[in-house]
Amino acid sequence: MSPGSRVAMSRRASAGGPVDLSDSPQARLFPLRLGSAAITGGLWAERQRLNREVLLPRAAAQLEAAGNFDNLRAAARHGAQRFRGPVFMDSDVYKWLEAIGWELAREADEDLERLADEAIALVADAQDEDGYLNSYYQVVEPSERWSNLAQDHELYCAGHLIQAAIAQRRGRDEERLMRVARRFADHIEDTFLRGGRPGTPGHPEIEAALVELYRETRERRYLELAEYFVDQRGHGVLGPGHFGSSYYQDHVPVREATEVRGHAVRALYLATGVTDIYAETGEPELLAVMEAQWRDMTEAKTYITGGLGAHHQDEAFGDPFELPPDRCYGETCAAIASIMWNWRLLLVTGEARYAELLERTLYNGFLAGLAVDGSGFSYVNPLQVRAEHHDPVERGARRQPWYEVACCPPNVMRLLASLANYLATGQRDGLQVHQYAPGRLAADLADAGHVELELATEYPWQGSIELQILETPAEPWALSLRIPSWAADARAAVNGKPVEADARGGYVSVRREWRGDDVVELELPMRPRLITPHPRIDAVRGCVAIERGPLVYCAEQVDQPGHAALDDLGIDASEPLRTETVEHPLAGTVVIKGRGVQARAARWPGSWGYAEHGSPAAVCEHEHTELTAVPYALWGNRGDGPMRVWIPLRS
Amino acid sequence: MSPGSRVAMSRRASAGGPVDLSDSPQARLFPLRLGSAAITGGLWAERQRLNREVLLPRAAAQLEAAGNFDNLRAAARHGAQRFRGPVFMDSDVYKWLEAIGWELAREADEDLERLADEAIALVADAQDEDGYLNSYYQVVEPSERWSNLAQDHELYCAGHLIQAAIAQRRGRDEERLMRVARRFADHIEDTFLRGGRPGTPGHPEIEAALVELYRETRERRYLELAEYFVDQRGHGVLGPGHFGSSYYQDHVPVREATEVRGHAVRALYLATGVTDIYAETGEPELLAVMEAQWRDMTEAKTYITGGLGAHHQDEAFGDPFELPPDRCYGETCAAIASIMWNWRLLLVTGEARYAELLERTLYNGFLAGLAVDGSGFSYVNPLQVRAEHHDPVERGARRQPWYEVACCPPNVMRLLASLANYLATGQRDGLQVHQYAPGRLAADLADAGHVELELATEYPWQGSIELQILETPAEPWALSLRIPSWAADARAAVNGKPVEADARGGYVSVRREWRGDDVVELELPMRPRLITPHPRIDAVRGCVAIERGPLVYCAEQVDQPGHAALDDLGIDASEPLRTETVEHPLAGTVVIKGRGVQARAARWPGSWGYAEHGSPAAVCEHEHTELTAVPYALWGNRGDGPMRVWIPLRS
Repeated sequence: MSPGSRVAMSRRASAGGPVDLSDSPQARLFPLRLGSAAITGGLWAERQRLNREVLLPRAAAQLEAAGNFDNLRAAARHGAQRFRGPVFMDSDVYKWLEAIGWELAREADEDLERLADEAIALVADAQDEDGYLNSYYQVVEPSERWSNLAQDHELYCAGHLIQAAIAQRRGRDEERLMRVARRFADHIEDTFLRGGRPGTPGHPEIEAALVELYRETRERRYLELAEYFVDQRGHGVLGPGHFGSSYYQDHVPVREATEVRGHAVRALYLATGVTDIYAETGEPELLAVMEAQWRDMTEAKTYITGGLGAHHQDEAFGDPFELPPDRCYGETCAAIASIMWNWRLLLVTGEARYAELLERTLYNGFLAGLAVDGSGFSYVNPLQVRAEHHDPVERGARRQPWYEVACCPPNVMRLLASLANYLATGQRDGLQVHQYAPGRLAADLADAGHVELELATEYPWQGSIELQILETPAEPWALSLRIPSWAADARAAVNGKPVEADARGGYVSVRREWRGDDVVELELPMRPRLITPHPRIDAVRGCVAIERGPLVYCAEQVDQPGHAALDDLGIDASEPLRTETVEHPLAGTVVIKGRGVQARAARWPGSWGYAEHGSPAAVCEHEHTELTAVPYALWGNRGDGPMRVWIPLRS
Repeated sequence: MSPGSRVAMSRRASAGGPVDLSDSPQARLFPLRLGSAAITGGLWAERQRLNREVLLPRAAAQLEAAGNFDNLRAAARHGAQRFRGPVFMDSDVYKWLEAIGWELAREADEDLERLADEAIALVADAQDEDGYLNSYYQVVEPSERWSNLAQDHELYCAGHLIQAAIAQRRGRDEERLMRVARRFADHIEDTFLRGGRPGTPGHPEIEAALVELYRETRERRYLELAEYFVDQRGHGVLGPGHFGSSYYQDHVPVREATEVRGHAVRALYLATGVTDIYAETGEPELLAVMEAQWRDMTEAKTYITGGLGAHHQDEAFGDPFELPPDRCYGETCAAIASIMWNWRLLLVTGEARYAELLERTLYNGFLAGLAVDGSGFSYVNPLQVRAEHHDPVERGARRQPWYEVACCPPNVMRLLASLANYLATGQRDGLQVHQYAPGRLAADLADAGHVELELATEYPWQGSIELQILETPAEPWALSLRIPSWAADARAAVNGKPVEADARGGYVSVRREWRGDDVVELELPMRPRLITPHPRIDAVRGCVAIERGPLVYCAEQVDQPGHAALDDLGIDASEPLRTETVEHPLAGTVVIKGRGVQARAARWPGSWGYAEHGSPAAVCEHEHTELTAVPYALWGNRGDGPMRVWIPLRS
């Protein structure tokens, strides 16, 4: 291969991606440089195209219509003006600017640059002389800055500003927003860390942003400020609030918090920041509580989709094993936060389980948040919707073009734009592939040299993955491929010769002197699987879910023969499942067929909702039918009908 | 018997109870006069004693401490003062005054009279010259009356004032509060009905109160005002609100509302008022929608305890069959509202199903709302509490002495004080006993004459009920006894001779010339029953509940041998259930024993919350144990441990 084939799409080939741990003492694995990974086809490339061509440009108009830009204009005029929307309106602008930063690192686009530049000018204009920047307080309560940290999201917005500035700088050498962000960060440092003002954000977010700002600037005071906010938490500084102090993780000091509690997005953004601090400081207690929280979450508080949050009322984690499929909250932002946290845990531990949960969340709890045609985003991602389904529009289970609380849409955009950064990592002498998508990966391995490879696959629809070495140094290095836990009988081969490798650690690893035309093949078995829930998950007792590869499946009303009521559908688990690839209307999708068992529940003989066990009044007739399941991520793209992930076992 | 034995405890022997349909054209059954029914022993007599001796006097101090009385004092001073608590604070005072009114009808008490008189003086002082009375608006926003009907409960408070005034008048000839209430009702009539102001209460309550005021005064304009508010509803007059207009039943005109939707207490108070209007006007559409709503509620939206409301977020009915046991709301006030509604439906239709749901609700969803020792009230009444259970204190599942939103405690008090009114009804030539408690019943039957009887039973613990005729005219009349649907094999006898009677209508009825020493015996079978839920109730699939008589049972952690985790308890339904009467600590309670099957879920072999169906990782070991169940109504009186009504079937 010629040197010209190197992937170097970033304007700043040395820039880090969203999480740059290249100098972090605790990193076991290192993210690739920004632009060193690209997704070139398949499901995610299509979503990235949609993001670039539709979501990001349209969001400019949506931010204009909702008043986000007007709020910044009002703040710039320093007079009493009208403010619209919730107090955290600025953060939507920042997340969108962050998304554009990563998107422009993928490929230049004059229209997106112009949109971003206009918004950055607005943000810069709005900043106060002393560096303060929050359009709500500047417009509505200028004398009340920092007076309601529990509810009013000033530090949360500041965190998103910092992340946007980092993306704009790393992605396109844009420095203006970074100057704004640093002035505000310095103001916050003066106010809290230097000024001795107690306080911590009611909604975490700034912690991870400040650590990244430290990584970007190497100014340790930003790391110290992040630590300050983490240390302040858990001492009641935020007050009890409406839902108790656990709502914003203020019920116990962070170093003693072994459970995930309260508002899911807050808990996970905090965990992301704490893990970032651990990556820099190596304080063992921080990793220990992060690992404990992760176990608590995955054993008892995570939906099979990777979705998180069981309560609508406080958008919170439920009690252990409280995982109702219908009242599942599973906010799209919580899925994104979980992906961010798992990525950092993967980097500081090298353990495959974090990459596996990241994959599950990406392909299910996150992907469901975006309509196939980009027409809407979901806020809430339930695992069951019944025939009769009443929900307020805001925070309902249906995808909407925008929301009054519009946290999710630009969050989807920033993850899609930066998604290639989450595929692979490097070490001194190896490259690790954690997620499989058609694309290219490159890394400069300290002990070996420049490596580059191309990945071809139809994953997640098929399990064949082919990696071709494009460039390699003469020195030996290790290529590690993650083997999902559902793929215990995976097979790997190099140039057609089977590899005998121990994948118990979650990776099959081949260390050798590679040549530029070597081909590695990985075959992940894609047999459909029936899944049983833990017996303590009361809400789905007696049911199974269907999975195939990384995808969780669901049944939708539209696929049921004769429109038999989905609410009454069961499954005969003794019959095998089959797969079919459909062309319309979910083109290219592998659907799963099985033997359905339809209860005639409309003819329930009981006089009301209950009847004596074993009596004729308690027995429903059944009939057999064909069951069709489609990927959960694609539900709700063919009308508004009922859906269910968990299907009652019947025979 | 001598004439002196007549029960005539009311000061006003001709007064009606809470619902006086004696002149209502649509009544099929007539409530007994106030004081003509008394509960003299057993479970309910003990609760009434507690109410009289503990709850009612203590509430005076609680209303003082919470600021309810201070708010009225502030309103009386007509100046800008401090207001404490939610906007509906006045209603707590009114419900408590209503309770005292009914309680003093049972028996005089100088202390309660004095407390009531003081509060009535406060209320009278607070009333404005023009009759308006609402301490929140008088103190905080005097110029903004009626400006926020959707949220601000002015009409709701007015309704409770009217009901309190009726109870004070009927119960103890107290006229001052009635003058206050009528002045306010007249002011409301002038403002809305005569003034042509559109509007309807965001929280229904005044509708039933106004109909009762019409019954008390025979002034038809109060009935017309109730109809006005009902007719206004469903045309968007309240705006969409945060949870949509169905939250306050404003999504569809009342005559088209065939489902129960939205906030459960609002929906049920509205239904109570609409049924009251039907009782007076006989408009067929109103009864038709009430029957449709009742079917919708009982087929798909009622917990086995009679509890209502499946959402915490909006305190609302869920979608059909959305009945999670853990996140059950089942507000105590909703149970009370259901009892009030079912009582009216019984009176206007004569159908046993309403008395049956009333009984179920009374013995389960309502009774659970009060601690056995009176130390606290529950707001939320879940059907499952897990070992790890986190909930904000306010609206948590644990009983508290009082609440910031204190609607439930005085609601419990007013129902307990008036409970005897719900036992029996009369017709021209018959007496119907709907609920069984030790006590006395009397009625003046228009076509027969004065009848009086004594009822002896240990119900609900035992199924033997003995009714002794104390007084009877020579003319024949019919004694009807309700046969619950679970007691199809009930047996009845008169003076020891079996009665061959058709109870398919829900009542066994004996018409004869009675003598003063006749004894009727009824034997209701008290075999413990296992209950299966409708197959669409996803949240409790694969489980059974235990019932005996009118009681729903539950398992509590404290009764499990060796403290095996209740979260992992199952039941072997093939083994018979046994009963035992325990002396301590739930004295006199019949508990139920069965064969438990304990899952070793702590040793779940899966790596996270899910595992492949049929694989070793998805299989939990089981062991057999003894299962003990206690009445749901008594849960949480022996510590704070886990509880569950629905028990997984295992073998």
